[in-house]
Order: sequence, then C-alpha cells, then structure tokens
Amino acid sequence: MGFEWDDHIALSRRDEGSFDADLEQGWTVGGGVNGGYLLSVIGNAISQTLPGKPDPVSVSAHYLSATTPGPATVSTRVLREGGRFATVAADLAQGAGTRITALATYADLSALPDEVSTTAVEPDIAPRDQCVSNEFAPAELRKVAPLMDRFDLLFDPTCIGWAVGEPSRRGLLQGWFRLKDGRDPDPIELLMVCDALPPVSMDFGVMGWAPTLELTVHVRAVPAPGWVKVSHRTRNIAGGMFEEDCEVWDSAGRLVAQSRQLAMWPRA
Amino acid sequence: MGFEWDDHIALSRRDEGSFDADLEQGWTVGGGVNGGYLLSVIGNAISQTLPGKPDPVSVSAHYLSATTPGPATVSTRVLREGGRFATVAADLAQGAGTRITALATYADLSALPDEVSTTAVEPDIAPRDQCVSNEFAPAELRKVAPLMDRFDLLFDPTCIGWAVGEPSRRGLLQGWFRLKDGRDPDPIELLMVCDALPPVSMDFGVMGWAPTLELTVHVRAVPAPGWVKVSHRTRNIAGGMFEEDCEVWDSAGRLVAQSRQLAMWPRA
Repeated sequence: MGFEWDDHIALSRRDEGSFDADLEQGWTVGGGVNGGYLLSVIGNAISQTLPGKPDPVSVSAHYLSATTPGPATVSTRVLREGGRFATVAADLAQGAGTRITALATYADLSALPDEVSTTAVEPDIAPRDQCVSNEFAPAELRKVAPLMDRFDLLFDPTCIGWAVGEPSRRGLLQGWFRLKDGRDPDPIELLMVCDALPPVSMDFGVMGWAPTLELTVHVRAVPAPGWVKVSHRTRNIAGGMFEEDCEVWDSAGRLVAQSRQLAMWPRA
Repeated sequence: MGFEWDDHIALSRRDEGSFDADLEQGWTVGGGVNGGYLLSVIGNAISQTLPGKPDPVSVSAHYLSATTPGPATVSTRVLREGGRFATVAADLAQGAGTRITALATYADLSALPDEVSTTAVEPDIAPRDQCVSNEFAPAELRKVAPLMDRFDLLFDPTCIGWAVGEPSRRGLLQGWFRLKDGRDPDPIELLMVCDALPPVSMDFGVMGWAPTLELTVHVRAVPAPGWVKVSHRTRNIAGGMFEEDCEVWDSAGRLVAQSRQLAMWPRA
C-alpha cells in the first residue's frame, strides 16, 4: 500500500535539474502551505539529482514569499560533487516567482561512521497514552489547518495549556509525531517534521501565524522506524523575531535532526 | 585612525553585483583562511549591494572547498527586495572555483522594534583579569595560526584545560573577545566572531582542524561597544560530524548573535 506522504512529495522530472511538483492542499495552514512540507519537496528533488547521495545532511532555506497549493517547479544546481558530500542550490518557484531558495549538503547517511557521543538529553515527554492528540482539536481549527490531518501529533500535557488559555510561557512545545497511517520517518521526511508543530509562540498565548524567514535542518542519522519525539524551544524574542530550535529523536533514543529557524513574532 | 579589520574586509566594486577582495594572510590558520572572516567578507559585499539594509539578520553558508590568501571575487544576486527584509545569494570564488556559497536575509537592525524577552542565560565567564589570554599561546602555535594576532581572546579558566592536556570534555569553550586595537563589534563583524574560536572538539582533547560544512548565523541586535562574550558548545558528535552552537553576548548583556555550524570531527 502506498502512503499519501509519498504522493504529496512526488515529482516529475522535466530535465536534468528541474522538476514539476503539485503542492498539496492538505498541507496548508491558514491559507499558506507549510514550510516544512515544502522543504521536503525541495529535499526530494535534490535527492533525485544526486545519485548515490540520497540524504540531506544540512539544508538551509530562506523563505521569500508565500506559496499556494498547486503546480510548482523545483530547480536544482549541483555546486560540488565528489567525495562523501555534495552541495546543491535549489529553488522552489510558482509562475515567475521564487518562493523558497535553499542550499543543501547531501551524503549517504548510512555510509557514515557509526560512532555516536551525545550529551544532549532526550525530551522528557509523557507516554503516548497520557498525551493530548491533535485529533481532539476543534473542528473550526482543523478547517483552517488541514495539515493536522496529515499526522498524529500527541502533545505532552505540560505543553498544551495554550489551547485552553493557560500557556506555560516556558517557550517549549513538545510531543510525539507520526505521519498518517503510520508511515515511518526517513531523512527527507525529517525536513518537514522540524516545521510541523504549531509555532512555539503559542506557548506564550500568542495565537497568530509566525512566518519563517530562515530554516536550517541538520539530519544527523537515518531515523529508526516508529514514532519520533519532537521538541521546539525559543530562548530569545527580540526585534520582532524569535528563533525556534527543534530536535527530533527517534524510537531508538537517537538525536536524528536538529534545526533552528528564525521567524517573525506573530502580530497580536 | 583606521583599524586593520576594516582593511581586511574591504572590497572594490567591479560592477553592480560583483566585488574584488584580497583575502588576508593574517586570517589563516593551519594554511586555510578562517571561515568566519570569509563570511564577514561575503557579508560586507551583501551589505554594499543593499542600500538601506546594511545588516545581516540570517546568513547561511555552505563551504565547498578551502580558500587561500590573495585575490577572490564575491558575487551577489538580489532575490527579494522591498519591505523590511531583502534576501541575497552570494558566492565567494577564487579562479574558476566557488569556495563558499551563501544565502542571506538582511535588514536595518536599528529600525526593528526594541522589545526583548530573553530566557537564554548569559555565559558564565570569569572576569577578564582571571582569564587566560591567547597572547600566552606558544610561539610555534602562533606561527601556524596567524589569526591569533587579529584579536584578543581571553579564555575562561575552566575551558582551557585542553591547552595543557587536561580537556574538560564538557564540549564547551568560552571567553571574552575583542578585535585588535579595541575595534568595536558591529553586525558584519559578528559573522566572524561566530567562527573565531578554536573548534570545540579541542575541549575533548582532539587537537586537529574541524572543517566547516555549513554555518548559519542569526544576528539578533546591533552589538554595544566593548568586549563580547562568546560561547561554543557541542552536544552531539555522530557520523564523523558535530554541531557547534555559538552565542555572542555584548557588553550590555544582550544576546546579539546565535549561530550553529556543522563541522567534520577532526581526524585523530
């Protein structure tokens, strides 16, 4: 059986370095298309451009203007090949307008050395049966955020107070994440996971949309099958912007992705 | 009086979007040119390309190949202008080879809102007169690392054990930083500061060079005059790579830059 995710990030190759995509309505939130999903679409195009180096190691994207569902073009340009790493520039465009521009370094993650030494601490998230599922979100919210039907997101109970008017004000959102129908994670999918949760500004009771200026994701390992833990944290709100640091940990207890984005603080 | 820093990052404009640079021998370390200095050279070119938006807000650079002192070209291409932000692609090349490719979002930092809300904690660094100055580095080290003559770097005494064979193994380097002759920091200079310290791998007793794959710097405010505090931390060494998270705090106690780089773990 195919999973909807694979259809949603599918591309048809137009020529050497350009691809047609059909951006899925189901990944919209508040009218815009989720930036993490778009990064996975771009990441998929880069992967197909690089035989033998399928996996993102580091992807940096600057978001220029809002994307709408429907046709889009991803163009890739290989800047360096050879050795263990390749570097590629990629743009996602609709009509004449570039929406997202990205730089990426790719490799074959499974061919890298196995040693791991981590002092980072796995997010402390309650067991799944004690978490609050996004399936309990009010119908009117789901209507403006169809992306919530794309995945199971189980919020740690200490991070969901904002939904009932009692934000924790710690600048922390965390929970369990899994694509719909239990599709297992992979390196390309992790690009989306790093931007799938609501903005951490909600943990301050600020409910608006937080447009991403820049998002960099480092994929540190191929994720094991199963649920992942995701945490989003901000520690500096300044100049009308905030950083959002994300970690993704896999079911084997390994830190598989680290990302940071700089986003606009929502208008009150 | 002019400061050497301003000469070292100086450019002569060739045309609308391309600049000639002369990369300074004095910023080399182990034969290569420091990647932070190079990012400031690129950042300076972008600044000169964008009237009214002089300051980096977010700069993402992927390092393709080693740079040598001498002539280089920086070419810039404006991807978005208008409103508060502009986005630019920039490459630094020597001869036919692109050495660094970057994407940057710029603005006028002084025109952004003043409010700040920070839960990040200022690095705990001993007073300057209790720190260990880079001027005490052995002569043979200074010979392979001329960049150490470009700035005053005062290491917190708890972070310098590696220099005498007793690394703390915490994955933490921090100290006070100031350009030579007391030149005050500015947003372009902060791009360098985020990559000026030795690699944090040294705090594990691993003394080799750690080539940068990717470096993203967010400049969060115009720094106040005076010394800055710099901290470098890693929490995940895996697949032969490690992330290095840097914070720069200014003399007014404000978090002025946050960066993360992904670098190769040095060969033993």
